[in-house]
Amino acid sequence: MKIVDVRVHSIAIADPPLRSSYGLHAPYALRTILELESDDGMTGISETYGGEAPARSLAAISRDVIGQNPYRLTGQLSSMTEGEGSGIERSQTYLVPGENPLDQSTRTYAAVEVACLDLIGKSVGQPVCDLIGGRVRDKVAFSAYPFFKYAGGGGEGDDLREDEYGEVLTPEALVGEVKQMIARYGFGSVKFKGGVLEPDLEIEAVKLLRQEFGGKVPLRIDPNSAWTVDTSVRVGKDIAQELSGGGYLEDPTAGLKNMAQVRKLLMADGIETPLATNVAVTSFADIPEALESDAVQIILCDHHYWGGMRRVQRLAGLCKVFGIGLSMHSNSHLGVSLMAMAHVAAATPHLTYACDTHYPWQSEKDEVVAGGRVSIVDGCVSIGDEPGLGVELDYDQLARGRERFDKCQYRKRDDEAEMRKHVDPNWKRTLPRW
Amino acid sequence: MKIVDVRVHSIAIADPPLRSSYGLHAPYALRTILELESDDGMTGISETYGGEAPARSLAAISRDVIGQNPYRLTGQLSSMTEGEGSGIERSQTYLVPGENPLDQSTRTYAAVEVACLDLIGKSVGQPVCDLIGGRVRDKVAFSAYPFFKYAGGGGEGDDLREDEYGEVLTPEALVGEVKQMIARYGFGSVKFKGGVLEPDLEIEAVKLLRQEFGGKVPLRIDPNSAWTVDTSVRVGKDIAQELSGGGYLEDPTAGLKNMAQVRKLLMADGIETPLATNVAVTSFADIPEALESDAVQIILCDHHYWGGMRRVQRLAGLCKVFGIGLSMHSNSHLGVSLMAMAHVAAATPHLTYACDTHYPWQSEKDEVVAGGRVSIVDGCVSIGDEPGLGVELDYDQLARGRERFDKCQYRKRDDEAEMRKHVDPNWKRTLPRW
Repeated sequence: MKIVDVRVHSIAIADPPLRSSYGLHAPYALRTILELESDDGMTGISETYGGEAPARSLAAISRDVIGQNPYRLTGQLSSMTEGEGSGIERSQTYLVPGENPLDQSTRTYAAVEVACLDLIGKSVGQPVCDLIGGRVRDKVAFSAYPFFKYAGGGGEGDDLREDEYGEVLTPEALVGEVKQMIARYGFGSVKFKGGVLEPDLEIEAVKLLRQEFGGKVPLRIDPNSAWTVDTSVRVGKDIAQELSGGGYLEDPTAGLKNMAQVRKLLMADGIETPLATNVAVTSFADIPEALESDAVQIILCDHHYWGGMRRVQRLAGLCKVFGIGLSMHSNSHLGVSLMAMAHVAAATPHLTYACDTHYPWQSEKDEVVAGGRVSIVDGCVSIGDEPGLGVELDYDQLARGRERFDKCQYRKRDDEAEMRKHVDPNWKRTLPRW
Repeated sequence: MKIVDVRVHSIAIADPPLRSSYGLHAPYALRTILELESDDGMTGISETYGGEAPARSLAAISRDVIGQNPYRLTGQLSSMTEGEGSGIERSQTYLVPGENPLDQSTRTYAAVEVACLDLIGKSVGQPVCDLIGGRVRDKVAFSAYPFFKYAGGGGEGDDLREDEYGEVLTPEALVGEVKQMIARYGFGSVKFKGGVLEPDLEIEAVKLLRQEFGGKVPLRIDPNSAWTVDTSVRVGKDIAQELSGGGYLEDPTAGLKNMAQVRKLLMADGIETPLATNVAVTSFADIPEALESDAVQIILCDHHYWGGMRRVQRLAGLCKVFGIGLSMHSNSHLGVSLMAMAHVAAATPHLTYACDTHYPWQSEKDEVVAGGRVSIVDGCVSIGDEPGLGVELDYDQLARGRERFDKCQYRKRDDEAEMRKHVDPNWKRTLPRW
């Protein structure tokens, strides 16, 4: 089997006005769909970060991909995963995920790896999870992922997609949002995107969530590095009881050194809430310092920027050795990424927390998966017997996504610019803010 | 595809009277060949440690294997790799490899994993290395593996296999043995099994090897924990120059704490010779202490007892993160194991030293691979385009191996008993001896 064609599709999808410490989600999120076609007429697909840079990187390696055997290609391209640096300047602390030039190469590699695995799976009639070691679970649990947000939905003009949650800018509204999400998807845990309101209001939101759901639904909060060490410690103490029983405090503050300081001060006070991260540790090169300083007790993996499914499995194995928990990071995405996340999760024994997903924030109308959106039932995505990732592309929907990309003005994600445009012309991301 | 039959073959192969700190190799080495037959008439094979215990373990899981899809089986059985303990009592410091009850489960799992991968590879027409991430090299380098030994060859009676090396019990004879091996196989490095003669004689052997080959052939010495910390440091200093340029000092002394002490004392004297091990670190559970104490700079992996090819890849990834070198351990084995070692090595980017192999010590007459022995040319095993492991069984040869097993009196490896029988009725393995 040889790859005879590489197709890279830049698409835009409606995205609601979600808030975070990065700023504001634009009306469109950008994604890239990769297709690898083989000489026997099969097509393997994957989805990755969007905009010009990722598409350009994928187009640039097309000539190394065409003519190759998909079983061997990942080995041939393995040097793409070797240029890892480390340190705060390389992480996503100051850049939104998908816009970090230092992991562009691993992101590109990952998109090719997943599409190769989908192609192989379709060619041999086996699901991707069973090509990479075999599933250890059939159902992959995801968390509810509530955000503070403005009303008005995602998209513009004909693409406007009103969302069902409306404006959510108070602790009480956030609880309402979570209740809606859980009623619809059955999530068994909640990851709350903080770093938007005053810390005291976010503390209140966490306390209200705990009151609402008791200890049955683990609670996580992720202020995206918005807090000082002192604020992190103050909040960590105040909500320690609410985060107990499977919760965590994610990236309260910027950088491994500050995270380590937060951990030390909390532990000195008997607070064992684990600290999680998806920005202070984004590559294997970050791990030794993270371990040595006890800055991080949970890593949020992401097969897109960690360099593919097998590297996520390797990360999981490493985390198991050192007693580090593993969860999974998400960005605005469609069903191809969701299935890839679910397949790697299914074949990763040491996955100790429900995965994140932005999937509920996207609209049926923008889904490129044939047959419509992937189901999340009882908070889980189910892995069946379908070959590859278990999904095919709807080419009409893909074409619409390309049209939206062509006509929208966005070519990269910039939540800060969006905040200035719609909310406050002087807004700047300041770390720490509180 | 479903597995419809499991066949476990206990075989015995002639093994020359090789010496080590464990004692003396018996006239027969024991191996186990596993066959998994699928409902479409294909057969996947693997080779593992021999004797009654490994065969019994494989037979015991047959009912969990029959009826299963080989793509999924490794996931279904993954709990077999989870019972890892750590500490000196679990390691092979005091037990020969393959006789450690604590890694019996991972060894059994590995045999099944490799046979599943061979079956899958044969079913889809792809080499095993390309199923597990893709080859990063086509040629896998192995070391010459000289031993001190008695004359007389391996096997007994009709099975007697005179070897070409005769008695090797002096430093000079050892150099001759290495020259013969290099002339025949083209090895580019030498791993010398010490721990047999007085340390001063082994120092002399290393110095003679360095004189013979200059710095072009990296030299390693493995006394299998025979030395005290003081002797290890004394020898380490004396042969530091000879081991420079890609050599290492393997398991000079027993246990991580003593290894760490040797490292500390050598480093204090400016000697940076890396310490390698295949007995102080034999599972992931051993790694944190090894890293923390700087006891080990190189790990010798072995897909048999580390729990399969994917776990070796995971180990390699972990080693890369922490700057630990990776080489590969060997035991007396035939061509099926050799090809499995070569395939996992081919698909493991972070393999930083030539692998060990006992293969030159085995005889063409005992090989179970169809077409005869696997070639080692310029010190390398080549990976081609043949599906699976690239080898098939010669069933007549396999039957002869079973006959040898049935008629020989050995049911497990016990080098100490063999030493008492043939050399010294009062011999005991004493660690440290010097």
